[in-house]
Amino acid sequence: MKTLKILALNGPNLNMLGIREPEVYGRETLASIHKAVSARKAELEKERGIRIALDWRDAMQSEEAMLRAVQETVDSKTGRPRTDGILINPAAYTHTSVALRDALAAVQCAGVPAVEVHLSNTQARDDFRHTSLTAPVCLGQVSGFHGHSYVLGLDALVNHLMRKTGSVR
Amino acid sequence: MKTLKILALNGPNLNMLGIREPEVYGRETLASIHKAVSARKAELEKERGIRIALDWRDAMQSEEAMLRAVQETVDSKTGRPRTDGILINPAAYTHTSVALRDALAAVQCAGVPAVEVHLSNTQARDDFRHTSLTAPVCLGQVSGFHGHSYVLGLDALVNHLMRKTGSVR
Amino acid sequence: MKTLKILALNGPNLNMLGIREPEVYGRETLASIHKAVSARKAELEKERGIRIALDWRDAMQSEEAMLRAVQETVDSKTGRPRTDGILINPAAYTHTSVALRDALAAVQCAGVPAVEVHLSNTQARDDFRHTSLTAPVCLGQVSGFHGHSYVLGLDALVNHLMRKTGSVR
Amino acid sequence: MKTLKILALNGPNLNMLGIREPEVYGRETLASIHKAVSARKAELEKERGIRIALDWRDAMQSEEAMLRAVQETVDSKTGRPRTDGILINPAAYTHTSVALRDALAAVQCAGVPAVEVHLSNTQARDDFRHTSLTAPVCLGQVSGFHGHSYVLGLDALVNHLMRKTGSVR
Amino acid sequence: MKTLKILALNGPNLNMLGIREPEVYGRETLASIHKAVSARKAELEKERGIRIALDWRDAMQSEEAMLRAVQETVDSKTGRPRTDGILINPAAYTHTSVALRDALAAVQCAGVPAVEVHLSNTQARDDFRHTSLTAPVCLGQVSGFHGHSYVLGLDALVNHLMRKTGSVR
Amino acid sequence: MKTLKILALNGPNLNMLGIREPEVYGRETLASIHKAVSARKAELEKERGIRIALDWRDAMQSEEAMLRAVQETVDSKTGRPRTDGILINPAAYTHTSVALRDALAAVQCAGVPAVEVHLSNTQARDDFRHTSLTAPVCLGQVSGFHGHSYVLGLDALVNHLMRKTGSVR
Amino acid sequence: MKTLKILALNGPNLNMLGIREPEVYGRETLASIHKAVSARKAELEKERGIRIALDWRDAMQSEEAMLRAVQETVDSKTGRPRTDGILINPAAYTHTSVALRDALAAVQCAGVPAVEVHLSNTQARDDFRHTSLTAPVCLGQVSGFHGHSYVLGLDALVNHLMRKTGSVR
Amino acid sequence: MKTLKILALNGPNLNMLGIREPEVYGRETLASIHKAVSARKAELEKERGIRIALDWRDAMQSEEAMLRAVQETVDSKTGRPRTDGILINPAAYTHTSVALRDALAAVQCAGVPAVEVHLSNTQARDDFRHTSLTAPVCLGQVSGFHGHSYVLGLDALVNHLMRKTGSVR
Amino acid sequence: MKTLKILALNGPNLNMLGIREPEVYGRETLASIHKAVSARKAELEKERGIRIALDWRDAMQSEEAMLRAVQETVDSKTGRPRTDGILINPAAYTHTSVALRDALAAVQCAGVPAVEVHLSNTQARDDFRHTSLTAPVCLGQVSGFHGHSYVLGLDALVNHLMRKTGSVR
Amino acid sequence: MKTLKILALNGPNLNMLGIREPEVYGRETLASIHKAVSARKAELEKERGIRIALDWRDAMQSEEAMLRAVQETVDSKTGRPRTDGILINPAAYTHTSVALRDALAAVQCAGVPAVEVHLSNTQARDDFRHTSLTAPVCLGQVSGFHGHSYVLGLDALVNHLMRKTGSVR
Amino acid sequence: MKTLKILALNGPNLNMLGIREPEVYGRETLASIHKAVSARKAELEKERGIRIALDWRDAMQSEEAMLRAVQETVDSKTGRPRTDGILINPAAYTHTSVALRDALAAVQCAGVPAVEVHLSNTQARDDFRHTSLTAPVCLGQVSGFHGHSYVLGLDALVNHLMRKTGSVR
Amino acid sequence: MKTLKILALNGPNLNMLGIREPEVYGRETLASIHKAVSARKAELEKERGIRIALDWRDAMQSEEAMLRAVQETVDSKTGRPRTDGILINPAAYTHTSVALRDALAAVQCAGVPAVEVHLSNTQARDDFRHTSLTAPVCLGQVSGFHGHSYVLGLDALVNHLMRKTGSVR
Repeated sequence: MKTLKILALNGPNLNMLGIREPEVYGRETLASIHKAVSARKAELEKERGIRIALDWRDAMQSEEAMLRAVQETVDSKTGRPRTDGILINPAAYTHTSVALRDALAAVQCAGVPAVEVHLSNTQARDDFRHTSLTAPVCLGQVSGFHGHSYVLGLDALVNHLMRKTGSVR
Repeated sequence: MKTLKILALNGPNLNMLGIREPEVYGRETLASIHKAVSARKAELEKERGIRIALDWRDAMQSEEAMLRAVQETVDSKTGRPRTDGILINPAAYTHTSVALRDALAAVQCAGVPAVEVHLSNTQARDDFRHTSLTAPVCLGQVSGFHGHSYVLGLDALVNHLMRKTGSVR
Repeated sequence: MKTLKILALNGPNLNMLGIREPEVYGRETLASIHKAVSARKAELEKERGIRIALDWRDAMQSEEAMLRAVQETVDSKTGRPRTDGILINPAAYTHTSVALRDALAAVQCAGVPAVEVHLSNTQARDDFRHTSLTAPVCLGQVSGFHGHSYVLGLDALVNHLMRKTGSVR
Repeated sequence: MKTLKILALNGPNLNMLGIREPEVYGRETLASIHKAVSARKAELEKERGIRIALDWRDAMQSEEAMLRAVQETVDSKTGRPRTDGILINPAAYTHTSVALRDALAAVQCAGVPAVEVHLSNTQARDDFRHTSLTAPVCLGQVSGFHGHSYVLGLDALVNHLMRKTGSVR
Repeated sequence: MKTLKILALNGPNLNMLGIREPEVYGRETLASIHKAVSARKAELEKERGIRIALDWRDAMQSEEAMLRAVQETVDSKTGRPRTDGILINPAAYTHTSVALRDALAAVQCAGVPAVEVHLSNTQARDDFRHTSLTAPVCLGQVSGFHGHSYVLGLDALVNHLMRKTGSVR
Repeated sequence: MKTLKILALNGPNLNMLGIREPEVYGRETLASIHKAVSARKAELEKERGIRIALDWRDAMQSEEAMLRAVQETVDSKTGRPRTDGILINPAAYTHTSVALRDALAAVQCAGVPAVEVHLSNTQARDDFRHTSLTAPVCLGQVSGFHGHSYVLGLDALVNHLMRKTGSVR
Repeated sequence: MKTLKILALNGPNLNMLGIREPEVYGRETLASIHKAVSARKAELEKERGIRIALDWRDAMQSEEAMLRAVQETVDSKTGRPRTDGILINPAAYTHTSVALRDALAAVQCAGVPAVEVHLSNTQARDDFRHTSLTAPVCLGQVSGFHGHSYVLGLDALVNHLMRKTGSVR
Repeated sequence: MKTLKILALNGPNLNMLGIREPEVYGRETLASIHKAVSARKAELEKERGIRIALDWRDAMQSEEAMLRAVQETVDSKTGRPRTDGILINPAAYTHTSVALRDALAAVQCAGVPAVEVHLSNTQARDDFRHTSLTAPVCLGQVSGFHGHSYVLGLDALVNHLMRKTGSVR
Repeated sequence: MKTLKILALNGPNLNMLGIREPEVYGRETLASIHKAVSARKAELEKERGIRIALDWRDAMQSEEAMLRAVQETVDSKTGRPRTDGILINPAAYTHTSVALRDALAAVQCAGVPAVEVHLSNTQARDDFRHTSLTAPVCLGQVSGFHGHSYVLGLDALVNHLMRKTGSVR
Repeated sequence: MKTLKILALNGPNLNMLGIREPEVYGRETLASIHKAVSARKAELEKERGIRIALDWRDAMQSEEAMLRAVQETVDSKTGRPRTDGILINPAAYTHTSVALRDALAAVQCAGVPAVEVHLSNTQARDDFRHTSLTAPVCLGQVSGFHGHSYVLGLDALVNHLMRKTGSVR
Repeated sequence: MKTLKILALNGPNLNMLGIREPEVYGRETLASIHKAVSARKAELEKERGIRIALDWRDAMQSEEAMLRAVQETVDSKTGRPRTDGILINPAAYTHTSVALRDALAAVQCAGVPAVEVHLSNTQARDDFRHTSLTAPVCLGQVSGFHGHSYVLGLDALVNHLMRKTGSVR
Repeated sequence: MKTLKILALNGPNLNMLGIREPEVYGRETLASIHKAVSARKAELEKERGIRIALDWRDAMQSEEAMLRAVQETVDSKTGRPRTDGILINPAAYTHTSVALRDALAAVQCAGVPAVEVHLSNTQARDDFRHTSLTAPVCLGQVSGFHGHSYVLGLDALVNHLMRKTGSVR
């Protein structure tokens, strides 16, 4: 049975969920998000007849940690993918990290696509949150649905990967 | 059994799908999108124990047609919702229609939320496509996953509506 | 007795009045605005010894409908005015319609002046509402007084027209 | 009988009216404007059954004079209004005076609303006249109708004040 | 004998020609433009040994009408062209319609090229007329020669089409 | 028989045609353009019953050479025109030469109109090519039709000149 | 015993304190600020073994008054300082007065430094309040601590002056 | 003998000359400037056979004082000039005063021209000094020559006035 | 006796103090700043009858370290504050770190306020230093007084905290 | 007797004077300007007891010619000045030539100052004429006085040079 | 024999070389770059009669690591250099790191110069790559020559250092 | 033995080297640069076993001369290269010449690459020097190392050409 390896990356301050500006981010926590994503994972596995190995890296506070995680999805010797795809909430780095963009572009080019998710509706917040440096090198984005953005992001990524590998739903 | 009434609006040029710039929009057609959305609708109905009445308005070429459809989700006499939510791909109007934004804001305020979807990854295209006039008055957006953006948009909308009505999943 | 023919145009979403964002637009409806305008019309008729024929076109949702109404104030054969003036709330089109601006410029040049009115104080709202494409080709604007903006707009238009026709008050 | 106390402020260079760029400002003078406003005042008094005490401060050349006049509408000890409303043509200060904006915001907050009027159609003139620093802290604006802008501004202010005090017309 | 099918589209307010700002648009009318274009058509037919079927759609006031006309140049089932080319004066929509741009791009991609024409010299008018949303998806533009812009536009389009079909002049 | 004297100016790098970026400029050369223009010249002469004296100045590399050629169309002593019109492809100077603009404005004012032509569709290329310093002081522009832009430019200029001299076609 | 002469300037609308937008400016008054500053003055005098002569000029409404006060800190004949330093809240003039900036630069250059203070956190308010014309010619700024900003501003100024005069603390 | 009445206005901070940033403004004082201007005045009187009455208003600190002085050059009753021309160094108000611009425009329109002078080379200083609000409504500017800018400004004004009055030199 | 727990954070490159661009940053070192702050701490403790526990984190070079320190001021389980306030010199991160802004906003919202301090007068330096991403989510700022900025920042924070806890000074 | 060597440079299109846009440039010609400048030269020679050798280079059409003329004011071997100063009307190059700016900066640095003059009031014309690339490396500018701008420019330059050489007037 | 100590810093994602977007970065790896640089090092050592100690820090993913490496080139106690120069490819941090700029400025000021190198031609890529925050505090840049950029960067640095130390080549 | 033909172009004002702003450009002269470049040429010839024919065109003052030199590197008849590469310091034209950019693009496309060099660190100078019109159509740039920039530029160009011709070093 085919296994899809998916890296799930959470950017800075996401550990503050539940505490942090609840009127913007809601009362969900990373734990409740993990749970909701697991439920969908199970459904997708069943529907598609695959296994999904989800590797959570929660609330990385540094650009470096995120970069390394992204880079490691590709074998630096052979250039071959070691992961099938990336589910990423770059949080604040969405708007400031050219380094993260470069890493995502590098692995995309080596065959590891990413999906960008956001808890909040970034277009409805500060002007500097309207621009995403990372989005143009991802497949697409899901934003504004709180924890459910992750659920949908996983769905989008799996759907894309299954098409690529032949089993379009 | 509860029925969710959902209006699905497609903006200008979406009738050209399959023909129109396939390197941007892919080879899907509105018909294949309808089909994929129906499949998810069935799953959601089953999972949530509800009925979903999906009212498709395809590839409306005019701002007027879209405005009227949005406005009619609310009873202009009583101000009460007649539809539970809106799934909308505003296409070109995303970037130019203040009128559509005003309509979405009006019905949102009256209790009819919308989810914005895009086939293409708008952040990876022309600069003028990076700005969305409509997104700030929607719940959130899904973009870049071709026809699957609609599938996820429906999922997001139903999830939001069920939370509101008490049956959080 | 002289009759002034005045076209009163309402742009998109004005049919939502009373329901639409009441903290911005108040609780007035088009009906209550009509009534207030009629009262002032009666006063103006009495004071000036004229008749005012007010032709309401309410909440036109399309640029086309507004364009056609504006264009018809001039006889396309002879270029002579068929209406004395225009009272217009271009709503969202204020900020996006070059076509409406062109039409207003065309009829202004043929002798049909317009007055622009707004329910809300547009300068106190979103940045994109601070610019008016239509105002430079109108006589002037009245904004921010809810339904009373229309009352004042009619007053301004009649005052202007009476000066032109010799009976300056 | 209720008396509405209204302060009427004219900004810099308005003493030049009649001389100053007649193609922009027309041939009216402050005197002819006073007269036209008085006529409307009389009508409003009769219609509403009130007295209107209009305190003209003509063509103040300095920001300071305008600031002081605005500030004095509120009792600096008690914070209570001493005037019911302000009719203001800030002239050049519209575009440059943050101080005047701050004063208008201060008294608005203490219960003294203002209406901004302009003789010329500012949207049809130099770019730097398209932005108003003062408008966002006023109720609304009337511009482009020469002296009649003041007549309408008074009407707007009285209408607003009467609604507030219960006698909505 | 080969027949070239050409769609000739006129945007909003062009019905006002002759009346509308004659110092900008001259005294020509749509009728006199049709006549001049017909004369050139006859010459081109003779010179090239072809037939040109010119389908005029005059002064469409709505984006929708223009969109539909553009879209219909391609068979939405097969994706095959039904028209050889488009002669278009998008008028005000030149500067505001992303929808029209998207439609022109869609049909260009399916093999239906367009030529953009303007009566006036748009570079010598308001700043907002210096940008064309539609030009980048056309073959080229002709502007500033009043009705003769259409004559030249037809010539350009026929010349392009004949090259493509082998009979380069 | 009336003779129209027309100066045809080609700006920098046009000598590179055929070699230079063929995907932008095509495979035409100045020679093939001359030939195509001559053919149209012959037609125009026949149709209008005039003689056209076309003075080609090819691929001037310097602003100075272009300036002098433009200036010499007017007699610097008498201010009278010595040439009837100018057909100009300012190439790179379109975007950078205020001096060329000033020269074109000077001779236009003295009765020598110009038509601007471009081989490529400048609106579809780099941002800095979207602005033309010279276009506002020309009659109009033709761009995007490769060598045929010159053919049409000549046609436009002759048509304009014949109207002015009384023989409107 | 050394005496430091310090000029304390309050810009326009500061007389409205306590009344003016209390959610922005708090409930303090100029009187309560004077009192708090006096307390710190006494402490500083004791700690440093100096006398501080504080010359308050409260809520000057005009640029002129502020300019004159700043200019008088230097003897216009000799160019020698007559005051040791300036504590200034330029209020609205912070953002609009080049004249005040020039005056502060002139006296700074003659040996009279200034410290800029603000009651509110200007960076968290309107965009036009983010720029300070006066700050670059002051020693530094203190903003956002309501009346305590003045207390700290005095402390900063005295600390700076004592360093200059040798008694670094 | 003809007498030219000239008003010489000095804006804010010019009283600081000699003290104020000598590396920018030099060591001249208003007194030394007066003297240099007087010398040229004497020469001009002799050369032209006229009398020049120079009315100095030095270093006005307020916009108001400058406005009033400018306004008084025209009789507000008759609209007739009372002064022949204005020599003005608006100093900081050059960059901030729309009111001063409006006053200069008003008197220019009534026949009183102005010449703008600056001690420093404003184009070589801060960006905000590169824009002049007042220059477009003056005849011209002289800047960068320290006190000699005034000498030249007087010369320019007298030369202009003498041409107007017939005695072109 | 009440103890105020205060976290003192120093951003990147502050370890270079004394070496780094002394004309901008002066000759103070972190050690001399600690000493000066300690002196003021002692005074504040005495005056207010409290204990202040100051936790210095010096010259953190990474965004991550600063983020973690800020986040730890709140208990991520309970959302309750573990520190009373933050004294922060974000240094370069002031202008680039959305992540730090988000963290400060998160803890501010949970009851931990911050005060921003800068050694240099940031408004008098490079343009990119005029904007602060962090200031809008702090109480206020102190900048330009070298090491004394920290002394004043502590004073501001303690003053704010004591007001909140009832012992307003 | 001291001789001042002055280079007088006229930029492109100045040979068109008298013909070129007379409403902007007046009816003067280079010849009449030479004459007026000569008259002032004679006066300056007499007043100052010097000889002025004025080397006119009229209406250079190329940047190159202007560059070479400017460069030759300095001996490229020794770096010593060969001319005392430059009177320059850079015309169109004012706004576009970095090369001319660099040359003027180079010779200024070697001891040859320049004065910039303009016939028209550049601040009252097109936006792109408001910026001068050359002015910041000149002593100052004179603009707007038609031919008299040159007269004043010479005066300014001589006055500056005489101060430098000790004979301040 | 003199030894030059040079720190060679590689920024984020450079470990991906060979894999990462080969059309932009080529197929070189860090290893092949090391080798090419070593060859040039050997040549430089021979030519100049020195030893070069090259300390490679490869592909640092974090701003912190880069900052620390830069800071350590100076002894934080004495302020004396411990390294002679820095060869740096800041990669993504070129465009986003004010902190890195500050560190480079600090050590430059203490006598440790840097040379910036880039593999790709940054001016030919995304707009946000056209601006370098770090370049202004380096000696210069070399960009676009793939691995050879490093070779040249080392050459530039050694040449600069040898000049400084007296042995100009 | 293979010969590389290299054209070395120096833009305007480079003849002023040694005299021109020595704090920016240093004391080197074109002669000393030629000498340094020759030395490296000799080394490269020896190392690579080739001959390098270096054709210097020094300090061309006109765009035209530079354009012609660039164009002549390609045979305009055959489109074949006549030179192997270009070493260019476009000086001021870097920032203003679209024509030079077009020429470089044309020859690059025909197989003649260029390397851009600058004496000064352009990123550390005026804002308008931060943008290069020519860089995007060159291989890369070297800037800031005074005369050594040319030495490195030659090295870069030869290295590139040798790779292309097979003898990668």
